[in-house]
Amino acid sequence: MALSFTLEAQDSSTAARAGRLETAHGDVLTPAFMPVGTAGSVKTLSPDEVAAAGADIVLANTYHLYLRPGVEVVRAMGGLHRFMGWPNAILTDSGGFQVMSLAELRQVSDRGVEFRSHLDGSRHVIGPEEAIRIQDGLGADIAMSFDELVELPAEPDVVREAVDRTLLWARRGLAERERLRAEGRGAMALFGINQGGTDARERARSFDTLGQMPFDGYALGGLWVGERRSLSLEMVEHDCARFPADKPRYLMGVGHPRDMIEAVARGVDMMDCVLPTRNARRGTVFISTGRLVVKNAAYATDERPLDPDCDCPTCRRFSRAYIRHLFATNELLGPRLASVHAVHHAVRLMRDARAAVVTGGFEAFRRRFTERFGSGETLTPSREPDRHGRPAAMTGTRKESHHDVE
Amino acid sequence: MALSFTLEAQDSSTAARAGRLETAHGDVLTPAFMPVGTAGSVKTLSPDEVAAAGADIVLANTYHLYLRPGVEVVRAMGGLHRFMGWPNAILTDSGGFQVMSLAELRQVSDRGVEFRSHLDGSRHVIGPEEAIRIQDGLGADIAMSFDELVELPAEPDVVREAVDRTLLWARRGLAERERLRAEGRGAMALFGINQGGTDARERARSFDTLGQMPFDGYALGGLWVGERRSLSLEMVEHDCARFPADKPRYLMGVGHPRDMIEAVARGVDMMDCVLPTRNARRGTVFISTGRLVVKNAAYATDERPLDPDCDCPTCRRFSRAYIRHLFATNELLGPRLASVHAVHHAVRLMRDARAAVVTGGFEAFRRRFTERFGSGETLTPSREPDRHGRPAAMTGTRKESHHDVE
Repeated sequence: MALSFTLEAQDSSTAARAGRLETAHGDVLTPAFMPVGTAGSVKTLSPDEVAAAGADIVLANTYHLYLRPGVEVVRAMGGLHRFMGWPNAILTDSGGFQVMSLAELRQVSDRGVEFRSHLDGSRHVIGPEEAIRIQDGLGADIAMSFDELVELPAEPDVVREAVDRTLLWARRGLAERERLRAEGRGAMALFGINQGGTDARERARSFDTLGQMPFDGYALGGLWVGERRSLSLEMVEHDCARFPADKPRYLMGVGHPRDMIEAVARGVDMMDCVLPTRNARRGTVFISTGRLVVKNAAYATDERPLDPDCDCPTCRRFSRAYIRHLFATNELLGPRLASVHAVHHAVRLMRDARAAVVTGGFEAFRRRFTERFGSGETLTPSREPDRHGRPAAMTGTRKESHHDVE
Repeated sequence: MALSFTLEAQDSSTAARAGRLETAHGDVLTPAFMPVGTAGSVKTLSPDEVAAAGADIVLANTYHLYLRPGVEVVRAMGGLHRFMGWPNAILTDSGGFQVMSLAELRQVSDRGVEFRSHLDGSRHVIGPEEAIRIQDGLGADIAMSFDELVELPAEPDVVREAVDRTLLWARRGLAERERLRAEGRGAMALFGINQGGTDARERARSFDTLGQMPFDGYALGGLWVGERRSLSLEMVEHDCARFPADKPRYLMGVGHPRDMIEAVARGVDMMDCVLPTRNARRGTVFISTGRLVVKNAAYATDERPLDPDCDCPTCRRFSRAYIRHLFATNELLGPRLASVHAVHHAVRLMRDARAAVVTGGFEAFRRRFTERFGSGETLTPSREPDRHGRPAAMTGTRKESHHDVE
């Protein structure tokens, strides 16, 4: 059962495309932003709120769910969709990134990764076969191949070795899914992950092999991990040029609005990132005109919504002043209202990009978005600036990590 | 402008009654449970969720809102209803209890209470006049008279002195509202608070004076602060017998289901308490058959809702297993889903009691409630008991303080 992916439109002046992924849990319109629900919950939000934001797919983390509550519990509860009350599609990551970034005492071999749980120190081994079985047990619509990640910068031979192992694991993961399918399981789609860091030749070498394997889609791995943005975007362009046009392309860990639009322009179909929601829980949101640090005292009496251009439930109903007050008093409704906006904003940005591709106006859309996002308009408090007379909302830094789980 | 309160039904075999309070923000059906929104937010919940639970009134804390964001900010934002997006009625406490329990370096005199903020150490004075002006500035529908609270047990003359001062402050609060009304403000209703601890004669002495003052309603203060439950209920019976029948009676700080029903049986119309929601945020909820510690590992694979008898959004949609998992992984959705149920349960319990009074079946309702609440049915995990073989959900203690702010 291959994943059905239909390309519905292609932009004439960029590589942007509009597609539709059919899953057992509804269609996913691409380009798509996938909110991250690490432990089976998009933090602070109900499934209804995530769906109301327009999300037709969420990401869940294999490593976390494997440790808590465990695959058997999720399976006993009828699978992840039923467990978390989410009716639409779910993509699970392979666990590879989290095993490398969170677990302790890791030992990597061709067999897989042996590690100790960051929660209780218990010993576990996850290899390419286990990763497939776990994701199948969770009931993912789209599973990811188990990959090895290297921290950049790394020596060329370290990168090469990780690429080779990822390719080995990719083949074994596909074989494991075949074995499951022979048993009547393994219905999920499976994406391969292209690695090679920021070395274009290495990424090309990786895909020479990966592209021959019968994956249902391909992911761009190992990017947005600290390298220059222009270099990341070069790699995206490079990978997308080699990826087959008829399969979905998933750029992992990207959620800054500018990066999302530029990735779409280079042919990316799917993205996920904790950045929008993690920022939101800390009192910072992306809005149409930039980045708003709503917890800032400068907004204490600002009656405007977070984003005057937004029609999300938060922006329709609550003022910056109230949300700022909620953050100042550590009320959980603050992170929640900001998260509602953040998910809505990211999902709608991709939905708008899709509409622009379909109507042939993507270039104009991209230009308008970029100008407006950089304008900073509405970031100045409507009533009173902070005590230094400057609109404090504009003083935040943009640098954020984004591959972490929520 | 007096508060309009209509008695719609009176139980024949108990003192239970059904009434209707008309406010500028809609009617409040009594008996009513008032969810607590300390800082302008019923913790973790959106105003829509609180309203969907059936709440037609919430309580907000004067002390907290006075310190943050400050009365002037709330006033500038159009008042508390608009600020927090709550369309129904709001009752504000006087701040007396919080000043005494939270603030530092308190000095009490007839003038009022001088204290330092527990947040930043800043100095403030709140007396009966300030309490009225602050509540008016917030835009309360029902304000409370500023009262002095003594910690029990206390010597009789300490209690007596606090009663006398509370009566003095009650008179001055009423006078301050008159002054505001002469200026076109002060439209809010004002309730007096009866004190006297657990000394029936002292409470009677207090009400001999308080009952002569033109308050719009009367509150039972100084109860449920650690004394025996049977003694508290005696005081409720005693106070209610003296309170006028045509004015609403508000029992402060009571939210345990058994206490609520017994208070209603003794003639109480309104109650508030942090207990249901604070417990919920810690993973414990009241359900129709008792007290469920959902965070307990015993519920790890329990597919039933928190309360099989409940039709709240949480119980219609999520399993104990999922909610237990959310608590185990510190997901904010856990406290939130539990809070949705908790508010719904408390509000509906009072709404059901009201319906029983109206139809003449309150005694039968009270008996059924008491039997069922004590049954413990459904508290046993449906699949696996905890490692000691006992339904761990029943091992929690009942003792909780409840006057605290959220």
